[in-house]
Amino acid sequence: MFPGVRFTAIVVCLLSLATVVSLCRHPGAIAHAATAGVPAYAANGDLLPPRDYREWIYLTSGIDMSYAPKAMAMPDHSMFDNVFVNPAAWRSFMATGTWPDKTVLVLEVRGAKTKGSINQRGHFQDTEIMGFEVHVKDEARFPGKWAFFDFDSPEKNGALIPSGAPCYTCHAAHAAVDTTFVQFYPTLLPVAKAKGTLAAGYLKEEAAAGSK
Amino acid sequence: MFPGVRFTAIVVCLLSLATVVSLCRHPGAIAHAATAGVPAYAANGDLLPPRDYREWIYLTSGIDMSYAPKAMAMPDHSMFDNVFVNPAAWRSFMATGTWPDKTVLVLEVRGAKTKGSINQRGHFQDTEIMGFEVHVKDEARFPGKWAFFDFDSPEKNGALIPSGAPCYTCHAAHAAVDTTFVQFYPTLLPVAKAKGTLAAGYLKEEAAAGSK
Repeated sequence: MFPGVRFTAIVVCLLSLATVVSLCRHPGAIAHAATAGVPAYAANGDLLPPRDYREWIYLTSGIDMSYAPKAMAMPDHSMFDNVFVNPAAWRSFMATGTWPDKTVLVLEVRGAKTKGSINQRGHFQDTEIMGFEVHVKDEARFPGKWAFFDFDSPEKNGALIPSGAPCYTCHAAHAAVDTTFVQFYPTLLPVAKAKGTLAAGYLKEEAAAGSK
Repeated sequence: MFPGVRFTAIVVCLLSLATVVSLCRHPGAIAHAATAGVPAYAANGDLLPPRDYREWIYLTSGIDMSYAPKAMAMPDHSMFDNVFVNPAAWRSFMATGTWPDKTVLVLEVRGAKTKGSINQRGHFQDTEIMGFEVHVKDEARFPGKWAFFDFDSPEKNGALIPSGAPCYTCHAAHAAVDTTFVQFYPTLLPVAKAKGTLAAGYLKEEAAAGSK
């Protein structure tokens, strides 16, 4: 499933932009995949893989995004990150400006290639998947309502990233809406602005940046 | 709809990678939008806008892709291109490895930003749309089965790009499947390989590149 994956020890914290070395690798026995858009779990607490996420709603892509001004890792290798959300959560966000319970956000990381077919410049996405992570809102299950799961592949179960990990603190401090980086989702940011659902911390940071 | 659009005279030929100056601008009176995934036309032959394309199936994104080794235009400005297809055509491709009649492929071009919120490096997608183009397969309507349409915005009608334009000849010569650049769609290329639907011209080019 992952031919040629070169960096299996890497986890990209969902939309946190920072690549960090995973502390929670797991053998990831394959279980039944979750049905479309509803988070489901194995007996050990792993998240079942969201099988049809490529048919969900696309939110955005970035390339080589990072907190750090200089590359922290793999300076000679570019990566795209694609973000998807389950359709029910998308519809709810478009109506309310925030996420409902059972929201499932998927981050898929792919290698970025330059030379291929007639392309000579810029980057296009490779068939190779280099990272896969899911951010789930499940209010009854997680004390902080949301949790991150890291996957070895989109077809294996995902392991819970412990709540003390940097993903959680970063998302809580800087994300625009309900601990999610809506400031990087071009179709959702205007909705959140119109609905008045932008987080106080985000608005404060934006005001400070604008006054510089 | 297009706040701050800086390059309204630019058309990006759908997945041809080359940006060319549009020769077919049109005032684009707004008409009723097409229903999901079915191409529909105004009386003058314009294509009605595919209103819900952001809820269609996402195929890929690229950044600054080009035939030319050096930037041909806007060297200081990066752009993402996002590609979507109507769900019925996606399902058909997954089953057959090629496109059915009434396939609608959408190319959305967005500005690429680096500094914003906590991001310091790489690029993320702006709310600003800088180009919009549609590739339609409508066998009974177009002598070559497919046609390209250029839009001033996703909400206005699109003008037919004449069949002699470089888009058509480039796609016919280099595209991997049925005049579409499936070689840049990471989830579809393996399907086309498995189904044996890769174009002879593409296979010949790949063989030549591999023997260098």
